Amino acid sequence: MKTYAKRDFPVEQIRRYLEPGPVVLVSSAWKGRDNIMTMGWHTVMEFTPSLVGCVIAESNDSFGMIRKSGECVINIPTADMIDTVVGIGNCDGGDTDKFERFGLGRAKAAKVGAPLIRECFASLECKVADTRLVDRYNFFIFEVVKAHVAPSPKYPKTLHYHGQGVFTADDGRAVSRRRLFTKLKDSPVF
Amino acid sequence: MKTYAKRDFPVEQIRRYLEPGPVVLVSSAWKGRDNIMTMGWHTVMEFTPSLVGCVIAESNDSFGMIRKSGECVINIPTADMIDTVVGIGNCDGGDTDKFERFGLGRAKAAKVGAPLIRECFASLECKVADTRLVDRYNFFIFEVVKAHVAPSPKYPKTLHYHGQGVFTADDGRAVSRRRLFTKLKDSPVF
Repeated sequence: MKTYAKRDFPVEQIRRYLEPGPVVLVSSAWKGRDNIMTMGWHTVMEFTPSLVGCVIAESNDSFGMIRKSGECVINIPTADMIDTVVGIGNCDGGDTDKFERFGLGRAKAAKVGAPLIRECFASLECKVADTRLVDRYNFFIFEVVKAHVAPSPKYPKTLHYHGQGVFTADDGRAVSRRRLFTKLKDSPVF
Repeated sequence: MKTYAKRDFPVEQIRRYLEPGPVVLVSSAWKGRDNIMTMGWHTVMEFTPSLVGCVIAESNDSFGMIRKSGECVINIPTADMIDTVVGIGNCDGGDTDKFERFGLGRAKAAKVGAPLIRECFASLECKVADTRLVDRYNFFIFEVVKAHVAPSPKYPKTLHYHGQGVFTADDGRAVSRRRLFTKLKDSPVF
């Protein structure tokens, strides 16, 4: 997979990449371990401070790492990473080094302990800013404290999820990866 | 503009349309008046009950209507409605009948007072479910209580906003409508 040389990007402008609703990869770290999860339920909430709200289910290993460390990195993959994105969302971080398993590279963040993912064109370093809706909805509000974005392409093609294993890339085609989902058979809504 | 014959759709599956991050049109009503606003900061939060979180800035006329009525409809426009979407986001509902001005048709909702927009392929009737983050972040949590969706196309082409007047449609092209934005000159982030 291609890696990106990223540059500093103004945190108050990260809506350019998150507002269109891409599937993202959230990296986290705690006590010498790290993890990655696939996440699709997020929204920009404010420009300054740069706030992003996200649902991170308690059943994810990442939930505990983020809760305890108070930090994470939101990495945005391009559409060609679809199989990596689905694979990460369908294996358990408890017994897998996902960076190794999926051939991803770590880069050191500036302000948080979680690693940036080299193969994603944008990485947003986040600190937990508000937890008052975590117990009820698993809803975290993060402040983006540092943003790293590849200067080109300006509008990378990203993945958008519709449920049932179906994504659209930015070319408008609906693509199913249902066969790679381990849990879909149990849930009509997943 | 084309109108859509919509059918009932399971509320626990509305993520199919909202999770990919489309720009939406929110309709609301209060005391004999109604209004429409353009909105891009939203996220699915739960399947059952079907919850959606949204930022609705207090400066919008719609904020008051939604706060007082406790209801709204989230309507999802297709990409060809770009000029309507931008126009609605750049005029003031206080002195304009936006349905009339933009040639949109009202349809009666089943469970809320706000009208459905006939020209949108999906309309989600919502009731306010949680207001505890409204004062601090203008963040409403809605329960989708009834969903109306056109059965075809299954994955309509929608609009995705990047700021600075630039949208991508699902064909991946970035399209600027900057000239139609009235407030951009005042803000580097809008």
